[in-house]
Amino acid sequence: MRLITLTTDFGWTEYVGAMKGVIHSIHPGARVVDITHGVRRFDVRQGAYILGTTYLYFPKGTIHCAVVDPGVGTARRGIILSAGSQTFVGPDNGLFSMVEGVEEAYEIKAKPKARTFWGRDVFAPAAARLAAGAKPQELGRRVNGYERLEFRAGVSGKLALGEVICVDHFGDIITSLKEEHLTAIGAEHGARLEVRLKGKKRSFRFLESYGHARRGELICLVGSAGHLELAVNQGDAAARLGVAGGEGIEVRL
Amino acid sequence: MRLITLTTDFGWTEYVGAMKGVIHSIHPGARVVDITHGVRRFDVRQGAYILGTTYLYFPKGTIHCAVVDPGVGTARRGIILSAGSQTFVGPDNGLFSMVEGVEEAYEIKAKPKARTFWGRDVFAPAAARLAAGAKPQELGRRVNGYERLEFRAGVSGKLALGEVICVDHFGDIITSLKEEHLTAIGAEHGARLEVRLKGKKRSFRFLESYGHARRGELICLVGSAGHLELAVNQGDAAARLGVAGGEGIEVRL
Amino acid sequence: MRLITLTTDFGWTEYVGAMKGVIHSIHPGARVVDITHGVRRFDVRQGAYILGTTYLYFPKGTIHCAVVDPGVGTARRGIILSAGSQTFVGPDNGLFSMVEGVEEAYEIKAKPKARTFWGRDVFAPAAARLAAGAKPQELGRRVNGYERLEFRAGVSGKLALGEVICVDHFGDIITSLKEEHLTAIGAEHGARLEVRLKGKKRSFRFLESYGHARRGELICLVGSAGHLELAVNQGDAAARLGVAGGEGIEVRL
Repeated sequence: MRLITLTTDFGWTEYVGAMKGVIHSIHPGARVVDITHGVRRFDVRQGAYILGTTYLYFPKGTIHCAVVDPGVGTARRGIILSAGSQTFVGPDNGLFSMVEGVEEAYEIKAKPKARTFWGRDVFAPAAARLAAGAKPQELGRRVNGYERLEFRAGVSGKLALGEVICVDHFGDIITSLKEEHLTAIGAEHGARLEVRLKGKKRSFRFLESYGHARRGELICLVGSAGHLELAVNQGDAAARLGVAGGEGIEVRL
Repeated sequence: MRLITLTTDFGWTEYVGAMKGVIHSIHPGARVVDITHGVRRFDVRQGAYILGTTYLYFPKGTIHCAVVDPGVGTARRGIILSAGSQTFVGPDNGLFSMVEGVEEAYEIKAKPKARTFWGRDVFAPAAARLAAGAKPQELGRRVNGYERLEFRAGVSGKLALGEVICVDHFGDIITSLKEEHLTAIGAEHGARLEVRLKGKKRSFRFLESYGHARRGELICLVGSAGHLELAVNQGDAAARLGVAGGEGIEVRL
Repeated sequence: MRLITLTTDFGWTEYVGAMKGVIHSIHPGARVVDITHGVRRFDVRQGAYILGTTYLYFPKGTIHCAVVDPGVGTARRGIILSAGSQTFVGPDNGLFSMVEGVEEAYEIKAKPKARTFWGRDVFAPAAARLAAGAKPQELGRRVNGYERLEFRAGVSGKLALGEVICVDHFGDIITSLKEEHLTAIGAEHGARLEVRLKGKKRSFRFLESYGHARRGELICLVGSAGHLELAVNQGDAAARLGVAGGEGIEVRL
């Protein structure tokens, strides 16, 4: 029995309920698990990050149906991707950029009833049919490529250069930098890192976990998904620093 | 196996968790699907719209348990409605106004432990017992009528006359007008419609989907549930226009 | 088949999705029910109240996995508690203070991958293994005690003395006082109660349910969980009275 997960920017609304109704109508035994419906509206980058850092926690065979789709109703395609034993269904707009090892891509053959709601009329039915045993090639035609967003991340001398991927639910700022970049510039837990962001330099204490910080302190840490996060302990870093996503970031000791 | 859906204005709180606990305690194999718990508090109109535009996406036999209940603890009744193969359980206050083809209505015989929480003490148990095989007549007595809200919608000459049903999660304004009313006044995609709302006239571009609009543009379209929606592309129309629900609306070319 | 419930302060985010992925990966047949993920961030008191007033609605054998964990990454332990047929898994910080009849406590033996996300790396796996049939002693070592918060509640002459436990989703103020304390000071439905809170005295009408109050009226009632709640009918009492949790409260006729 293949699980179906849902990830959208619909909020926890009836739009999600309708998708589940469609899935259960097509595949009465379906098992559906929400990843989240709290992706910031139209934020494909955040959707890509959430999917990319969550899908591997799910069992083999899981079908991930994701809808963050500012271009719904325009020419962008719907796709199915196979990666290992897992399958991904959604709009072809970069949402699956952080899925590793994609082997095959299919364009979904779709004629949605409603031009504004592919989640309910195209992607949920496709996921349900896959869960019920259909092959991707029964739902569309094989294509060669699919959209991928690139996130800058690298090291130049003593400088780690990356970008803000997105802001999480708690206001923590998620960056494209990983442990390897911090190691390369010699950062160790307890050190102070100078972070240049939006033209300003600020000092962050580099910690192992939130529990070691003072309330309101500017800290950074490698978060649970392996990415460098900038945070205000028990506060909202993104609001305090005026960050929205996409900003460049430079980090040095 | 009959699915149980839940639709409430409880927010995604422990009150929903308690309802699910009760359902699983009465019927251990129950399968429960959330439609949404984000109905605006006490907004029976929005609850009616959400249920009415979502229930048909669920499989035959589904039991829809809905609780938007400003009158809890007063004399209003709890009801069970049968419509086709589906069943509806909740307060008799208009919440099921948009369910079509209701064949039978039953007043639930209830003696709730807590006068303030029929969702947990009356409606969830009733839904669980129905899912486990009970007949409506085992849970209450047949009655002749039930509460229905009426939503104005019609055409007078070149004018389509309706009302705002509610505001959705994204701030889009959902009206009682449908495709047929727009066709009757000669509206075609691409046209500009003059909308009179709260004493002001504004021009909206009538589109097929959000993807075709400019950011911030006033647009209207027939949404995924078949109703005319007024929207600000990638913005909040209800906040911008000061709309809450219930306002009259006039539309002309 | 033992149900697993989840209660966290993660919001309805991908962090919850990751926990569910882990559970299904370890125990493919798992049945997971959300109580809520809307606990106010880091509010262990509210988490304790929600769990304590909800768990008994779940079936025998249920495993409650709860994570409100401001001390994650520090020395605080993870625990498993057995109480009747139910089991509780989470941080040992007072979160299980309102669970009655705890018979055994175990410290979870843990070596989490991420120091910041025990929910995913320690507690969800423990809950999944318990649901799949493991015994608590396979997951840790028996210990003698666990953390409990105390909530003041008592009567002194004509005065009921308690404290604010937390604020619920609707802004209602949940107190530690129960029906017995109100009976002891002679309070009956319909009476006016004088409530001293944050140095101010205010008069609240003591009602059986919200349905009997005027819009905006200050009322109090014994809520669905058996606790005295202070409320503003169809309004937000906590915002109006400036209450956050932990304040002392005195009630008299």
